[in-house]
Amino acid sequence: MTSPIKIAVSGAAGQIGYALLFRIASGQLFGENRPVSLSLLEIPSSLPALDGVEMELNDCAFPTLAGVSKSSDAETAFGDAHVIFLAGAKPRGPGMERKDLLAANAAVFSEQGKAINAAASKYVNVLVVGNPANTNCLIAQQNAPDISPRRFAAMTRLDHNRAAAMLAEKTGAKVADVRKMIIWGNHSLTQYPDIHHAEIGGKPAMELAGEKWYKETMIPAVRKRGAAIIEARGASSAASAASAALDHVRDWARGCDDYLSMGIVSEGEYGIESGLVYSYPVKCTGKGESEIVADLPCGDFSAEKMKESETELREERDAVRHLLP
Amino acid sequence: MTSPIKIAVSGAAGQIGYALLFRIASGQLFGENRPVSLSLLEIPSSLPALDGVEMELNDCAFPTLAGVSKSSDAETAFGDAHVIFLAGAKPRGPGMERKDLLAANAAVFSEQGKAINAAASKYVNVLVVGNPANTNCLIAQQNAPDISPRRFAAMTRLDHNRAAAMLAEKTGAKVADVRKMIIWGNHSLTQYPDIHHAEIGGKPAMELAGEKWYKETMIPAVRKRGAAIIEARGASSAASAASAALDHVRDWARGCDDYLSMGIVSEGEYGIESGLVYSYPVKCTGKGESEIVADLPCGDFSAEKMKESETELREERDAVRHLLP
Repeated sequence: MTSPIKIAVSGAAGQIGYALLFRIASGQLFGENRPVSLSLLEIPSSLPALDGVEMELNDCAFPTLAGVSKSSDAETAFGDAHVIFLAGAKPRGPGMERKDLLAANAAVFSEQGKAINAAASKYVNVLVVGNPANTNCLIAQQNAPDISPRRFAAMTRLDHNRAAAMLAEKTGAKVADVRKMIIWGNHSLTQYPDIHHAEIGGKPAMELAGEKWYKETMIPAVRKRGAAIIEARGASSAASAASAALDHVRDWARGCDDYLSMGIVSEGEYGIESGLVYSYPVKCTGKGESEIVADLPCGDFSAEKMKESETELREERDAVRHLLP
Repeated sequence: MTSPIKIAVSGAAGQIGYALLFRIASGQLFGENRPVSLSLLEIPSSLPALDGVEMELNDCAFPTLAGVSKSSDAETAFGDAHVIFLAGAKPRGPGMERKDLLAANAAVFSEQGKAINAAASKYVNVLVVGNPANTNCLIAQQNAPDISPRRFAAMTRLDHNRAAAMLAEKTGAKVADVRKMIIWGNHSLTQYPDIHHAEIGGKPAMELAGEKWYKETMIPAVRKRGAAIIEARGASSAASAASAALDHVRDWARGCDDYLSMGIVSEGEYGIESGLVYSYPVKCTGKGESEIVADLPCGDFSAEKMKESETELREERDAVRHLLP
């Protein structure tokens, strides 16, 4: 029996955490033959609810679940973790401006970054799901100088999956036949879903879907999908966000030969300012490594959209600069 | 490509439905290579929320999910279904007595039984999760005379999993090493978790756990586990109930050589009144078939507990007799 993979989840009693934990524990992240242990992090006021989540995890009698631990201390929760999902974030309160929200989360994620640096495995992979994900990721990563920067990522996989599903629906294709989808930039309203390189069953997606539909319908629909879900469900995306997080980490670990979108620390690729956490098309080469797909031609339309999202990310970073080391 | 398996779920926008659908759609019920289509049933007032659930299912870009349909009409939703999860049930309202609750649900489940009889595959498997599950199952089954009675079941797998997990924790064993657990009777406070035949790593569970702990701690703890979850989480078991439902149907379809517990129509086995839906130890022989484990010796302690639960089920049936054909 191989030793368990330790997976830490923050915001573990929240809606995304609740949707994620049972899928991980059932073997969907690392397979049915690989034991996992879960380390759950919550704020003190949510620890009673977290007791209930732990009870339910045990009640599932999952053969793959080797253990569950709980803490409200980040360093304890992240100790020796191989994978960390940062699913918890402070929601926007009444009268709070975006700047206040950024600052409130920045304080949380700088502490968590330090805890990861101090306690987690040096080969940890950290996926930031809690919003504003890119800038939260930037702060955590900057506070963890001993860990390779690209082992941190902000999740744009939900946007990527949404875009692929919309394209499949529009063209009557199976979603599994959609390849080379790209989300550039920030996980926000400025994100840029790009289908110039996408293929459906080997054919160019733009030809099949049409440029007018792409520009006038698809781009705004992907950007505003989160709000549409809230409008319908009366609650924000939870199960689909958890599913995307699982997809992201599974592909990161196993590798994947399709393009995937993830927010990672820029080294200036595609003219984006170095140091920002920007969503790029990547190929996952396995074991938590990834490389940016290089040299894709980007026309004026794409270049402008990519810049817009970069500008927003620069502003977000500047708003929390006091918390960067 | 094989044709999709059609799986219908009632109460699809509820908490258990929400926890169940994404696990089914991701391939955890019939495997990663078998396409499934989901048919979602909800009451009219929950159809807007159900739109949001459908959107999230699409947003997951599951390769195994061949389609999603929605309806508030049972016959439409169950048409040609191969598997039906009846997860929806009316909750107890303020001032409602147990008898009123039984009657309110009986009306729903008699309609659903008729719809299943009229529209579903003749080889459907129907799992009743909504409470009071045994009597709801009885009513649905009695209203579906053209379908083999034992293709209906009431879920006691959650109790079974909880009992196995408690036994593993008490004895320091892995839950996968616990075998031959039994839940007898009603999915209620009279259920009888029986470890007289259970084994842990091949050794008698009773010897390892101790009779005193079993009788004084374990039996009441299994019976009251649902209330303990509500106390901790502030919400009833959802993800663990969904997980047990998945386990039940997966084992029903694939077969399983361990004992499993399911509420099925009695033919008088173990002296239980014929026609009641009573949880027995069964072996699943695959393709939705099961057989009751015969000739287990039951001492006075067990016989008394088994009778108590039978008495409760008889009372429940008598309270809804006007809705039985």
